[in-house]
Parts: sequence; structure tokens; C-alpha cells
Amino acid sequence: MSSDADSFQPLGVFDSGLGGLTVVRELLETLPEEPIVYLGDTARVPYGTRSAETVIRYARGCARLLTARRVKALVVACNTVSAVALDLLRAELDMPVIGVVEPGAEAAVRAAEGHGCPDGIPPKVGVLGTAGTVASGAYPRAVARVTTRLEVIARAAPLLVPLVEEGWIEGEVPELAVRRYVAPLVEAGAGVIVLGCTHYPLLLPIVRRVAGDLAGRPLPVVDSARATARVVADMLRSKKIPPASPQLRRGSLELLVTDLPDGFATVARRFLGGREIPTVEQVDIDPVG
Amino acid sequence: MSSDADSFQPLGVFDSGLGGLTVVRELLETLPEEPIVYLGDTARVPYGTRSAETVIRYARGCARLLTARRVKALVVACNTVSAVALDLLRAELDMPVIGVVEPGAEAAVRAAEGHGCPDGIPPKVGVLGTAGTVASGAYPRAVARVTTRLEVIARAAPLLVPLVEEGWIEGEVPELAVRRYVAPLVEAGAGVIVLGCTHYPLLLPIVRRVAGDLAGRPLPVVDSARATARVVADMLRSKKIPPASPQLRRGSLELLVTDLPDGFATVARRFLGGREIPTVEQVDIDPVG
Repeated sequence: MSSDADSFQPLGVFDSGLGGLTVVRELLETLPEEPIVYLGDTARVPYGTRSAETVIRYARGCARLLTARRVKALVVACNTVSAVALDLLRAELDMPVIGVVEPGAEAAVRAAEGHGCPDGIPPKVGVLGTAGTVASGAYPRAVARVTTRLEVIARAAPLLVPLVEEGWIEGEVPELAVRRYVAPLVEAGAGVIVLGCTHYPLLLPIVRRVAGDLAGRPLPVVDSARATARVVADMLRSKKIPPASPQLRRGSLELLVTDLPDGFATVARRFLGGREIPTVEQVDIDPVG
Repeated sequence: MSSDADSFQPLGVFDSGLGGLTVVRELLETLPEEPIVYLGDTARVPYGTRSAETVIRYARGCARLLTARRVKALVVACNTVSAVALDLLRAELDMPVIGVVEPGAEAAVRAAEGHGCPDGIPPKVGVLGTAGTVASGAYPRAVARVTTRLEVIARAAPLLVPLVEEGWIEGEVPELAVRRYVAPLVEAGAGVIVLGCTHYPLLLPIVRRVAGDLAGRPLPVVDSARATARVVADMLRSKKIPPASPQLRRGSLELLVTDLPDGFATVARRFLGGREIPTVEQVDIDPVG
């Protein structure tokens, strides 16, 4: 690594759509020195309804495109790909690969164990996700890899993604929708709620308020986007991977999409927490593989 | 047609999922003597996010499967297929093919023209649909084929499908959501509202109430499922296609699906207006073609 061009090794992040930008937002907070290349496969969103073979093929395409951009690590900011293709990407790529499910599950275990058992019964881990994520069993598997003491109850919350994409993240409607999904988890003994979809962090304040209200005490709510950013930071530190050279740092976010849907900028800005959208490039993903 | 087996020629109806059962419900009301075979391609729902080539391939597969069941006419109870593949299916199949877009558009034109122009300005046709249907421009095209006098304003209503699938079709939340989508149509001068998605008829009472409330006078709301059933009845009458033999009539509804998703029976019963679900058969669609 002699020249600046050589040393420009950003973090690569991809998702089937724009939801993964909530992970980018947390990465920008946690690692402000790191340049980031984000790829949203917006032409083929959602992945949740595809077969595992198709998801693997799409994930390989996204990884190949980012590898060609010389990323130093890959963050899979997509629950479906994290559930289906993470081990395979890890085996195939010569770089660290981090998904969103494991960090969320690990943070949930810590929160549940730290929270104690007020009535002597271990709390359960409540997970909200898309129908695809819940059906995949990814969160119960990921929790079981950390501890066998905690039971996981997962619930599909199909209204939450369209609510977030519509920008309906405050007020009565999202509150009633969140209550509908969180109530059965709290009633079943959830002592922590995991937001198991990259869209959901925008509803975090409501989930926290509703869960506390239903439980009659504050319940920890795990934002898997934030948990993932922390795992990425730990990984870079432990592997002693240096940040990019100073002149390439800060504010360096590249946004690649496979399609420019209507209302793209509005939705993207929302996921980035109001940040201005950087340059957007439309790319094609090589269909081979 | 000598034997009973020969004379068993049901109506074939297909959709990417279960929404098309609202069309079946109307067909059962309008044509109680007709046996019906319904195919829901539940393994590949939704079609709205696929490329036109893929939708055409899927539509051909569905049509082939129903043709093999000896249907006498094909009802395409799917807005996406109606928008993309109807002319092609008509050219390829030796039987009447009816989509949902044209009947809805024609009923909307009749309603708008019958409704008059209270202030001398011709009313506009307001359409609610999925993002895919709105982007396809299918309703403006279909209305333009009937009249050039009426402007069409279409609006994507992405929350309505998940609301219906969640069974949230009464009360404050669907009312607020419907108001959000209908208000801009009424403000822009819509004199009739078309429910341009097979899921929406379950929200018809709310749409009617909200639209009337916003307009300050009753607005006609076109249920394209009902309009389609009427067009099918007219077609059978005009072509003098006889109903099935008496012993095969009434209550004869076969339900074919490519996947049995969770909560299938509940959702299917809801779309059928509370009718009990008939025998369900899981089928594979030949991938060739």
C-alpha cells in the first residue's frame, strides 16, 4: 500500500434495498473515520420472498461488485442474506464478513442476562422481523449459539416495513401497529425486544415506549443496526485494520443502487437519519454466478 | 361433449397470491352455477417487483396449468399480469381471457360519466393500486381506450395490502391509512375512486365512507373484482358458453396453490368473505417456457 489510491479501502455494506442504510448511519456514528461504499440491490428488492438459491446468487453478485471496489470488510446489512448466505460468503471471501443477525442476537443475550429475572424465571428474547426472517429461524439459531438458557419468541410484523417506507414513524398509527406486534411478545414473557429488520430502528422510540408501557417496567430494546456497527468497530480494532488515509476520511459515503425507484432520495435520507444523500451511482450486477 | 367428464369445464382464475379470491367471491355471487378452479402462485408472490419477462413467464406457467385442467375461460385476477401479459395470453390461448384492469377502468368511466360534472369540470378517475400497478400506467391506458375525456390520477397505497393481509380492515388504523391515500385524489378532483388491487375490496366500506366524507358528497367507488365478475358473466352469455352439467354445479371451487404459507386458511377465508375454504391442493408449476 504505497499510494493513496492503494490505501483507499472502504467498508463495503450491502442490503437488498435501502433499509441497510440504518446500519450505515450507525457506522458513521461509531466509525466516523471510515469511508463506506453502500450497495442497495433496489432492482431486486425484496429478497425475503426468493428461494435460498436465488438469495445466494444475488448475495454473491453484491459481494463481487463490492470486492471489485476494493473493500476491506463486508457488512451484510440484510437479514435475509445474513440468515441464508453468511457462512458461504465467509468461506468464499478473503476478508471479514459481518451480518446483522449475530450482533443483534448477542446484544439481546447480554441485555436479557443483565436484566436479571425479577420473578426467578429467565426472560425470553422477543424478536420482531419480516415473515421471511421469522420463518428462517435465524434468531433462535443465533441465540442458541450463545446460550441455551434463553428461549426466543419471534413474531412477523408485516406492517412495519411499509409504515417506515411511507415515513409514518410517529403518531397513532405506528403506535397502534407496534402495540399489536409487541403485546403478544410481552405477554409471552419477553424481557428484551430485538428489532430484527434494518427498517425498524426508525420505530425504536415507539417500540421502547410501547414495550415499557405493556410490561409495566422499562424493557431493553436491541437495535441490531447499532449492535452491528459495534461488532464492526471491535473487529477492525482486534484485527488492527487501519482506517483509510486521512485525506480520504470523513463524509466519504458512496451510494450504489441497481435501480432508482420513485421517492428514492426521501426514503434514503430518512434511513440515514436526515443526512444529505451523497452521490448516487446506478450499477448493474453481473448476472454470472 | 358426450360424458360428464367431458362437460366439466370450469372457469380458471389465477393470481400471484390469494388476493384474486376477492374476484372468486364475486364470481360465486354472480355466477353461482359455474365451477371454478383458482390457482394462487403463492410461492412466487408478489409479481409486482419482477421484470416484465419474468411476469410473462410466470403467467404462461399459470395459464398452462389451468389449461391442462380444461378450463373454458381464463380470468387473470392479478393486476400485474393484467397490465403486462394480457394481450400475449389472448394471442396464445384458444379461449376467452379476461383481466381485472379493463373491467375496472370501464366501470370507472361509466361511473364518472353518470355522475355528471357538478361544477362543469369533468371529474377525474382516481385509482388506488400497488406501486407496481401505478408505475405500469395500466389504468390510464385502459381508460384512454374507452374515452379521452377523463383524466386518470393514480396513487400507490403500499400500506393497504399488508393491512388487509393482517386482517386489519376495520377501525381507526385502516381508516387513517385510507384517508392518507384518498385525500390527495379527492383534492385533485377525483369524482370516482377505483380499487385497483384485488386486496382492496375488503376495505371498500372504509374507502366509501372516507371518500364521501372528504368530498362532502357520496363518491362512487369501483370494486374491480365485482366489475370483472360482471364482464365474465356478460362474456359467457354473449358467447353462449353453457354452464357445467347440473351435477357438477354449485359449491364446486377448487383451490390450487404453489406454496402453503402460514396462516393460509385465515387469509383465504377472509378474501372469500367468510366462506369455508374448499379442498386445497399444492401444485408445482412447470418451469419450462
